[in-house]
Amino acid sequence: MSDKPLRIGIAGLGTVGVGVVRIVRKHAKLLEDRAGRKIEIAAVSARSRDKDRGVDISHYDWEDDPVAMARRDDVDVLVELMGGSDGPAKAAVEAAIAAGKHVVTANKALLAHHGQALALAAEKSGSVLRFEAAVAGGIPVIKALTEGLAGNEITRVMGVMNGTCNYILTRMEATHQGYNALFEEAHKLGYLEADPQLDVGGIDAGHKLSLLSSIAFGTQVDFDAVELEGIEQIELQDIEEAAEMGYRIKLLGVAQMTGRGLEQRMSPCLVPAASPLGQLEGGTNMVVIEGDAIGQVVLRGPGAGEGPTASAVMGDVIDLARGLSIPTFGIPAAKLTAARPAKAVVPAPYYIRMELDDKPGAMAKVAAVLGEAGISIDRMRQHGHHSPTAPVIFVTHKCARNQIDTALEGIGKTKVVSGAPVAIRIEEV
Amino acid sequence: MSDKPLRIGIAGLGTVGVGVVRIVRKHAKLLEDRAGRKIEIAAVSARSRDKDRGVDISHYDWEDDPVAMARRDDVDVLVELMGGSDGPAKAAVEAAIAAGKHVVTANKALLAHHGQALALAAEKSGSVLRFEAAVAGGIPVIKALTEGLAGNEITRVMGVMNGTCNYILTRMEATHQGYNALFEEAHKLGYLEADPQLDVGGIDAGHKLSLLSSIAFGTQVDFDAVELEGIEQIELQDIEEAAEMGYRIKLLGVAQMTGRGLEQRMSPCLVPAASPLGQLEGGTNMVVIEGDAIGQVVLRGPGAGEGPTASAVMGDVIDLARGLSIPTFGIPAAKLTAARPAKAVVPAPYYIRMELDDKPGAMAKVAAVLGEAGISIDRMRQHGHHSPTAPVIFVTHKCARNQIDTALEGIGKTKVVSGAPVAIRIEEV
Ligand SMILES: NC(=O)c1ccc[n+]([C@@H]2O[C@H](COP(=O)([O-])OP(=O)(O)OC[C@H]3O[C@@H](n4cnc5c(N)ncnc54)[C@H](OP(=O)(O)O)[C@@H]3O)[C@@H](O)[C@H]2O)c1
Ligand SMILES: NC(=O)c1ccc[n+]([C@@H]2O[C@H](COP(=O)([O-])OP(=O)(O)OC[C@H]3O[C@@H](n4cnc5c(N)ncnc54)[C@H](OP(=O)(O)O)[C@@H]3O)[C@@H](O)[C@H]2O)c1
Repeated sequence: MSDKPLRIGIAGLGTVGVGVVRIVRKHAKLLEDRAGRKIEIAAVSARSRDKDRGVDISHYDWEDDPVAMARRDDVDVLVELMGGSDGPAKAAVEAAIAAGKHVVTANKALLAHHGQALALAAEKSGSVLRFEAAVAGGIPVIKALTEGLAGNEITRVMGVMNGTCNYILTRMEATHQGYNALFEEAHKLGYLEADPQLDVGGIDAGHKLSLLSSIAFGTQVDFDAVELEGIEQIELQDIEEAAEMGYRIKLLGVAQMTGRGLEQRMSPCLVPAASPLGQLEGGTNMVVIEGDAIGQVVLRGPGAGEGPTASAVMGDVIDLARGLSIPTFGIPAAKLTAARPAKAVVPAPYYIRMELDDKPGAMAKVAAVLGEAGISIDRMRQHGHHSPTAPVIFVTHKCARNQIDTALEGIGKTKVVSGAPVAIRIEEV
Repeated sequence: MSDKPLRIGIAGLGTVGVGVVRIVRKHAKLLEDRAGRKIEIAAVSARSRDKDRGVDISHYDWEDDPVAMARRDDVDVLVELMGGSDGPAKAAVEAAIAAGKHVVTANKALLAHHGQALALAAEKSGSVLRFEAAVAGGIPVIKALTEGLAGNEITRVMGVMNGTCNYILTRMEATHQGYNALFEEAHKLGYLEADPQLDVGGIDAGHKLSLLSSIAFGTQVDFDAVELEGIEQIELQDIEEAAEMGYRIKLLGVAQMTGRGLEQRMSPCLVPAASPLGQLEGGTNMVVIEGDAIGQVVLRGPGAGEGPTASAVMGDVIDLARGLSIPTFGIPAAKLTAARPAKAVVPAPYYIRMELDDKPGAMAKVAAVLGEAGISIDRMRQHGHHSPTAPVIFVTHKCARNQIDTALEGIGKTKVVSGAPVAIRIEEV
């Protein structure tokens, strides 16, 4: 037990910041027992001082400027919960590090864009930078990967890590409504970020994936190399066709080190409905970690919200109170390598859907194009004829994405389909 | 980076010990990067020096006596992988602690029986005692509970933590064979401990539950208070009846702090087939942790085997190399309270099966007994008459275990059933 309390300064008193204040107030004794010392809030900062935040902050010093707060002598740890890849979040974190203070943040955007620079700076100044809450909310996945599974060579990391997208996709299936209706619903419920592209464009989930990749493979965070595809193009019909064949569509992140470089992609995929990933409902997140000794570990839990996110923040704060010291991404930042991004993703089966003309010879033409692209067919489904076209679904055997692209282009040229054919990867999970 | 390697001494070179040697040899560079220093094996110990272990141990000093090895000046960490609650495992761990060395062990029996004494001794001598591999094999659940979720008041912990029992139960359902046939199969496959009661009697899983309880609730390990019930009494018929009603039978551990004391039980339960716990196949383990901030987190992974268990051991070793220092059960041993064991478990619905005489009035008599015990019925199933008796299944509404016991006794006295009625708890997971 140390007599010295750990004093934190909280920058940002929104959903997560208020959650942290609540835990510190409610569990003072428990936290002291577990951390081996008192955890105290020295100061807080947010935009508007007078906002009623539903929690009493009158005992803490107020700072208008988060950078000034980060530099205070009585702040041992900056808890950054403002958000944004640049601006005050970055400035405050940099100021804290420069002053040799530790940092806990929930800010995936900041780390996805500046993780390497911040990690280098932190190690230089003897600061520890932790970010459990930035990935998969309350699930202690950063800890599992950086610490618990550190004896493994990690072979693959997968995750459903944007609750809003998973909410939209599972609600489309449940309510038989299209994407736009569910987007509106998610918006009304306040599930979408101010810039919805962060969610439905896969950017937020891509940020998270880039952080997991770095730890898993000892590489510098490379968000720009994440192949991003959002969920806006997913049609109800695809969700329902997939379901009939025993699949569900998830916005799935996959990171793996291949012979051709580091593959990082965040895109809608079909996964078996009976798999743990397939069964994920609503806002719940799931991360799958595969390593050479462990085999596979699956972690599942709430991906967002006040309590879960604050729980992750407090886990980091308690670690720091206990004296934990680990490089930001698990190995010293200077040793993180610049991974060559894989130019082509590993082959997989694909789901292909098209509206085929209900004319003699149409199917033969499409089959010929697939054959020319070297794609062999595992299963085919053709539906009742709503002439003049009928939906046709192919499930291919494993093939390369460029074969699929060649085939899609070729199918367009046959003039026997209406609209553009759709292809979605089937991930073997 | 430290120039000083962390030197480990491995006592026990069986399944897990050999796995640890393999990881240290295979991943020397990776471990050094992650741990911040070299991890070296200084010495090893086992019973027979000449056994071919499939891995080269000629570079390491051999010690016949694990206690002597624990005391060596060139051993910083004793890695105890011999097993057994007493004998050489206990002696070696005590010797290491007395010498101020850290200890990593996979030995749940040792900790379930002597955890409190060892934790006190370790803290007195400045040793750190870690045991990730002792609970749920490769799943980093001790870390999740002690560190990642340390900001939560834990409300409930549940787990399927004996792979052999889960193998037997899921194979009974898949192959329509009875318990004895599958027990034999598990035996032939080498899945059973030398004393099979440790597995099928629920003892091994009970050990694990008692360790999780201690961390979750800040209480002294109290294995004797775990209400233990094995799987030997589970009949194929119960598994199949449960399946038809949408349940599966699992050997489920539940620990929760109630108004009436600490409830710890390890017993067969019905869980919804569609729940994560219900979907668990074969040797896979699952732990569910519920806390006031996080809500629910589910961790799933391999519960045993060379690679997964060695992975957990290495996670602990790397933590020690990085300087992690946490009390054994998350808070200082002297602060762990002696929890009052709950005398009665929390109410739940129950599954009751009996062979009812195929005579007028028989059902009325049973229904009367249930009513007198204050038990109300949610669902009832009666099967085709294989006179002179027919199986009847009741699913009750929530009631107390003593109401069930009263009813079972009363039903016996009615003389309208043949054999003893069976009652299995339905756990709301
Ligand atoms: N919400 C979640 O479930 C969740 C989950 C995982 C990670 N995160 C991450 O956690 C962080 C915070 O999220 P949140 O949902 O809590 O955000 P939020 O509710 O929008 O709160 C943001 C807070 O930051 C303050 N702030 C914004 N700009 C500021 C500035 N220039 N100077 C000082 N304070 C400023 C705001 O002040 P005012 O209140 O005065 O406007 C507000 O208190 C983000 O990085 C987010 O990505 C959130
Ligand atoms: N196996 C798993 O999957 C698993 C999973 C989780 C936890 N665990 C735990 O890990 C521990 C080890 O399990 P295991 O499966 O590796 O056991 P194991 O294969 O039976 O190996 C035990 C080892 O301990 C050595 N040993 C036994 N008594 C000894 C003594 N008196 N002095 C010196 N060495 C002695 C044996 O030596 P010889 O080889 O010379 O006979 C053997 O190498 C146990 O506590 C177990 O509960 C195991």
